[in-house]
Amino acid sequence: MKKILLVSSFLILLVSCAKQTQIRSIKVANINELNEAIKNCKPGDNIVLANGVWNDVQIKFYGNGTKEKPITLSVEEKGKVTIEGVSNLKMGGTYLEVSGLYFKNGNTPNNSVIQFKINNDSIANNCKVMQCVIEEFTQPDRDVSDHWVEFWGRHNELSNCYLTGKSNFGPTIMVKLEGNENINNYHQIINNHFGLRPRKGGPHGETLQLGNSDTSMTPSHTLVANNFFDHCNGEIEIISSKSNFNEFRNNVFFESEGSLVLRHGNYATIDGNVFIGNDNSKFIGGIRVINTGHWITNNYFYKIKGAEFRSALAVMNGIPKSPLNRYNQVTDAVVAYNTFIDCVSPWQFSVGSNISQSDVLPATEIRSARPERVVVANNVIYNEVANQYPIVNYDKVDGVTFKNNIINSENKSEVKPNGLKTKAISVTKKTDNLYVLNENINNVYNGFDFETITKDIFGNDRTTNNNSIGAIVNPVKENSVLIDRSKYGTNWYQVYRLKPEPKTFNVSTTEELKNNLKQASSGDTVSLKPGVYNISSSLVINKEINLVSIDKNNKSELIFKSENTAFEMHPKAKLKLKDVILSGNKNQNTFTTLNKNMSKAYDLFIDNVEIKDFKTVLKVSKGSFADSIFVANSIIKNCERGFMLNKETNDGGDYNAEFVIIKNSTFDAINEVVLDFYRGGYDESTIGGNLLLENNSITHSGTGEKDQILIKNRGIVNVEFSGNTFKNNPVKLIAILWGEKGQEPGVNTIENSGKIEVVKNLKLKLMY
Amino acid sequence: MKKILLVSSFLILLVSCAKQTQIRSIKVANINELNEAIKNCKPGDNIVLANGVWNDVQIKFYGNGTKEKPITLSVEEKGKVTIEGVSNLKMGGTYLEVSGLYFKNGNTPNNSVIQFKINNDSIANNCKVMQCVIEEFTQPDRDVSDHWVEFWGRHNELSNCYLTGKSNFGPTIMVKLEGNENINNYHQIINNHFGLRPRKGGPHGETLQLGNSDTSMTPSHTLVANNFFDHCNGEIEIISSKSNFNEFRNNVFFESEGSLVLRHGNYATIDGNVFIGNDNSKFIGGIRVINTGHWITNNYFYKIKGAEFRSALAVMNGIPKSPLNRYNQVTDAVVAYNTFIDCVSPWQFSVGSNISQSDVLPATEIRSARPERVVVANNVIYNEVANQYPIVNYDKVDGVTFKNNIINSENKSEVKPNGLKTKAISVTKKTDNLYVLNENINNVYNGFDFETITKDIFGNDRTTNNNSIGAIVNPVKENSVLIDRSKYGTNWYQVYRLKPEPKTFNVSTTEELKNNLKQASSGDTVSLKPGVYNISSSLVINKEINLVSIDKNNKSELIFKSENTAFEMHPKAKLKLKDVILSGNKNQNTFTTLNKNMSKAYDLFIDNVEIKDFKTVLKVSKGSFADSIFVANSIIKNCERGFMLNKETNDGGDYNAEFVIIKNSTFDAINEVVLDFYRGGYDESTIGGNLLLENNSITHSGTGEKDQILIKNRGIVNVEFSGNTFKNNPVKLIAILWGEKGQEPGVNTIENSGKIEVVKNLKLKLMY
Repeated sequence: MKKILLVSSFLILLVSCAKQTQIRSIKVANINELNEAIKNCKPGDNIVLANGVWNDVQIKFYGNGTKEKPITLSVEEKGKVTIEGVSNLKMGGTYLEVSGLYFKNGNTPNNSVIQFKINNDSIANNCKVMQCVIEEFTQPDRDVSDHWVEFWGRHNELSNCYLTGKSNFGPTIMVKLEGNENINNYHQIINNHFGLRPRKGGPHGETLQLGNSDTSMTPSHTLVANNFFDHCNGEIEIISSKSNFNEFRNNVFFESEGSLVLRHGNYATIDGNVFIGNDNSKFIGGIRVINTGHWITNNYFYKIKGAEFRSALAVMNGIPKSPLNRYNQVTDAVVAYNTFIDCVSPWQFSVGSNISQSDVLPATEIRSARPERVVVANNVIYNEVANQYPIVNYDKVDGVTFKNNIINSENKSEVKPNGLKTKAISVTKKTDNLYVLNENINNVYNGFDFETITKDIFGNDRTTNNNSIGAIVNPVKENSVLIDRSKYGTNWYQVYRLKPEPKTFNVSTTEELKNNLKQASSGDTVSLKPGVYNISSSLVINKEINLVSIDKNNKSELIFKSENTAFEMHPKAKLKLKDVILSGNKNQNTFTTLNKNMSKAYDLFIDNVEIKDFKTVLKVSKGSFADSIFVANSIIKNCERGFMLNKETNDGGDYNAEFVIIKNSTFDAINEVVLDFYRGGYDESTIGGNLLLENNSITHSGTGEKDQILIKNRGIVNVEFSGNTFKNNPVKLIAILWGEKGQEPGVNTIENSGKIEVVKNLKLKLMY
Repeated sequence: MKKILLVSSFLILLVSCAKQTQIRSIKVANINELNEAIKNCKPGDNIVLANGVWNDVQIKFYGNGTKEKPITLSVEEKGKVTIEGVSNLKMGGTYLEVSGLYFKNGNTPNNSVIQFKINNDSIANNCKVMQCVIEEFTQPDRDVSDHWVEFWGRHNELSNCYLTGKSNFGPTIMVKLEGNENINNYHQIINNHFGLRPRKGGPHGETLQLGNSDTSMTPSHTLVANNFFDHCNGEIEIISSKSNFNEFRNNVFFESEGSLVLRHGNYATIDGNVFIGNDNSKFIGGIRVINTGHWITNNYFYKIKGAEFRSALAVMNGIPKSPLNRYNQVTDAVVAYNTFIDCVSPWQFSVGSNISQSDVLPATEIRSARPERVVVANNVIYNEVANQYPIVNYDKVDGVTFKNNIINSENKSEVKPNGLKTKAISVTKKTDNLYVLNENINNVYNGFDFETITKDIFGNDRTTNNNSIGAIVNPVKENSVLIDRSKYGTNWYQVYRLKPEPKTFNVSTTEELKNNLKQASSGDTVSLKPGVYNISSSLVINKEINLVSIDKNNKSELIFKSENTAFEMHPKAKLKLKDVILSGNKNQNTFTTLNKNMSKAYDLFIDNVEIKDFKTVLKVSKGSFADSIFVANSIIKNCERGFMLNKETNDGGDYNAEFVIIKNSTFDAINEVVLDFYRGGYDESTIGGNLLLENNSITHSGTGEKDQILIKNRGIVNVEFSGNTFKNNPVKLIAILWGEKGQEPGVNTIENSGKIEVVKNLKLKLMY
């Protein structure tokens, strides 16, 4: 009661002020007050959420402000107001502005966290969401789909927000176009920071999707500009543009494992964007082109190591008369004034050509329609170490006109157009990742409508006589940078925080072990003194924990006594086991995930560990996902079965782990399958999973395996398989490799153990 | 030489004048002079074709005029300059204007008569073709495809032209959209008169096509306004819109056998058009809707008797995830403020639903996606005689919102939306075909964006309080008319001419017969005095000829002696035989078409004629086409085979005759097949052919028919088959009828003659 009185008097005070200022600020402390304030709000009103945790609130913010007098919903102090629990925000009306909301520790009860629509009769127009944060506000069950921001209506804006850690199904941001009310929307998605989108293990992990195939004929006109895509690794498409006339300008894609994909729809503008890879990752891509009439200009690609779907520039083959949800032919596209620095495969054409798969695919899945009427002009390719194969083609390149492109090495590609000339050029590194030609190359091609390309990536004028090929025209302003972090995200949330120094706990008893596991902070180490630890309940892992023996030459032994699983892996578990012995009694599993609600990925690292006498080494649930399973220098023996990553059997392209690396280890007397790693469904765009099986010894295993296969890796895309020794395993097959994906066994030693089979094409279930 | 001198001095004269007027008129008398004039032309120049026949000229008109000073190509006197033979016109450049050209007696050597492009480097922009006529300038071979006007570039115009009589493959007008130079074209096709487009017998007979499926994603923005479509009967699509954002405004579709079809592409505007049918024709349609986002407003439909594809308003079912060239789902369409007067089937939904054909069609051909998010509002349906079934639905109607529509009779349709109310309304006939509500009905629904519908069909204001449902808002100006013929076509060509009075020639000898057949004008009658006429060469029919006996009770007999066919049917032949006997010697055919170059349709009417002792009664060539074959009250006997309309075997939807009507006739001792009438290829939009077989007697026939079928009508869409007597025909089957098209035998008498089989679905070759 006291609180209400306080608020009321605050209200009165503000109302009295408002007479002069015409702005009424209404502070509210709970959902009822908020609802009441919304009900009564007028143009110019500012509703202020009081500091505190707003738990389980479903806010419907409606009203009609005006351009001059929007109705605003803000917070008392940014960062001190959090929306938690089962909560969301829906907006309907005109000129509503929301700022400072901070969603965390929860999830939306329905399809979106922030939605620019309350219902079909109350859609948002000219509304803004600014300075908000959505942090790991992800569904408990990864298989449950939602969006964090769902656009409807027209002229809405998401700006200066920070969104991070969505791990469940569904694009982070979705623009909806069903219904005339929502087309020609001119939404603006600007100056946002899109933080980590963890690897999802299958499709539906986009950071941004504009429409879908059913609405891909609609004019959208969404502007995506000046955003920072920072490790957006959800799936192969960081952005999936599926509508017409969208614009992507001056965004930075930083070490994000995917591409900006023009998946459906036509006439996109991709201008002035920056794509930054690194020395290691082949998963970081650039732009993938499908459909008609796109203009790709002034973009800068640096260290993009991806190929095929993840090339810096991947121009696909289409399906003739493609079904609406498949691949239209690329026509009338323009790729001009782009710069490619140290990219492994700058240009690929007819990507996705799959004529060779006619045996296993229907005609309506065969991508045989080559790009047509495509102009590639005024681009620069520069590689510090000569790249003699800048063009990769999977079909004839007869529909592409190359004009006035320059490369600094000899072009030994199969395709050697006159329009790609070798020239000794020199570049200077100006700032991080930014390499600039030392001199403009003025000899530009002026194609149809090229006069509309009036500026370079930094906004410098191209209409002078000193124009240049490439994304950058000299002179470049001093201190030009590719990434200006101050531009992106909120002005209040601290994205980059110092991690606390990790601690180490030395333990010598089971009790100490259990207590310290609980008390440890993420990143800490629990060190075991030599000896035996008898354990009768599961060890719960829900953070980053290193569990090691103090004396690696005298490994500590954990002996598990009950039927409970030894280690229970929770979301965000990151267990690193080193130099220990795990012993079971054949009645329990070594590692299991929760049965459901594995909302976030876990990791498992095993190094110099002995695992023996368990039922299943790793047992997972459907929907669970391991980013990495790493086993090295270990011995696993006398178990019923090994690593079972085989629960995504609905053949939707999903799988239970991104990386499975097993090397220098010994498996002996594993009764059934040593590894079952499954991905189902024909999906040409799935990149994973990844399996490395190297220098292992596998013996006396597979005896009880009814399928007579020792290692199952069906549908897994990347498999390396070499240096292993297989002896005395009574199976028909060691493994089946997938030839079409380039899988082949390396040198393995096989003795009395069946064989490794390679099949060209797997017959998979069509997903579409 | 004299001529050249004259021209030169004329030139000089004009040049000297030009100093004052700044307009230079250059008269040219032949192609060389024309080429020279074009080569030298400057903004403001007017090149004038001298009177006369310009034979075999391929004009390339190029140059760059300006908005203020276009370069013009005109004629000395309109109508006195004709372009004939193998000729055409291509234009490239800017601000070129052509007027007064008259194409006749010939055809183009390539793909178009008038083309707004010379080659890819010389495309027309801001160019006009005005006051021109193209009259039967059709390919000798109907199977050869061309366009009469082919649009490329941007901002070009065809206005006040008259185009008539195209009978070969290919849309009369084609807008091409391949290449960015040709999109966003804003072409204007305005104030033209599109005269007769004869029935073509299969697809590819559009009067106007805007793009094709391959370019159906392009923004076209072509305006088609104030044109008169006058008996445009080429095929089921008068206009085939296959691109985006096209506008169709205030056109009149007059007794044209087809529809304005939104075949591919989206967001068309169809506003203020008039569709006029008549009491007889079921082929005259209205608007057929496919795809997304169309606005159909202020249109007036009168006496549209068509159904299904040819309903006044046909909203189709789509194919889920349709291939590019098939049927997308209808979504987000608006049908508002239209008036339907005396239409048989004003509204049909889910037209084309073919789930029942799943046996014979692949899944990618099944139209099962119902219209979604469609609004039908503020329309009026009025029928003088109550029409209790205004809505026909082939599937559930769950995606259509009906609002504030009125009908003057009870709605007993399966679909009875609240948004279609019965109300006693009265109308007044103002002028021809124009019926107007006596009072405005003000209760209009204001849907999303409905405020953009500011005017009615006559341009009257809708923004007042006195708005009305229906296409017309009262008060209507005095003397408002639906068709103002003065608005359409040229100001010089006389479309409507008096036919000369037909003459009759009485003949009594073979020589007279032959001479008079040659000398007769089209429409004349050659009357045979009683007796026998021995004829040893073919009688050539290349016009409308009536050949009759003077005394019908004492029929004249034409006895054909040679192996030559009796009657050789040429293009435009219209032979009416009445009361005569035709006798052969079993070595010749009765009627044959030319082997090739049957450029235009022919007709054959046979009434009270006896035909005996021929090889084939009618033998046709591929590409030939009969509009009508009519046989009544006749006897045909002792022939090897009957009417053989079976040459369109490439299964592209074509066929050799539109109407075949055989009634009250006797066929006896026809050794093989009596009729072979063939259409091949699965094409749901083909309307024909049409076969009526009624009250005939067929005896002792089919003896030598290897297929054991007496009458072949495979693939013919409309078949009526009743009252016939079949006796002693040693065949297995009399005929196979096509159940899916509603074909069923009526009451026929069958004795010792096989049976009539009905199959539900024919398995046809897929055309797409």
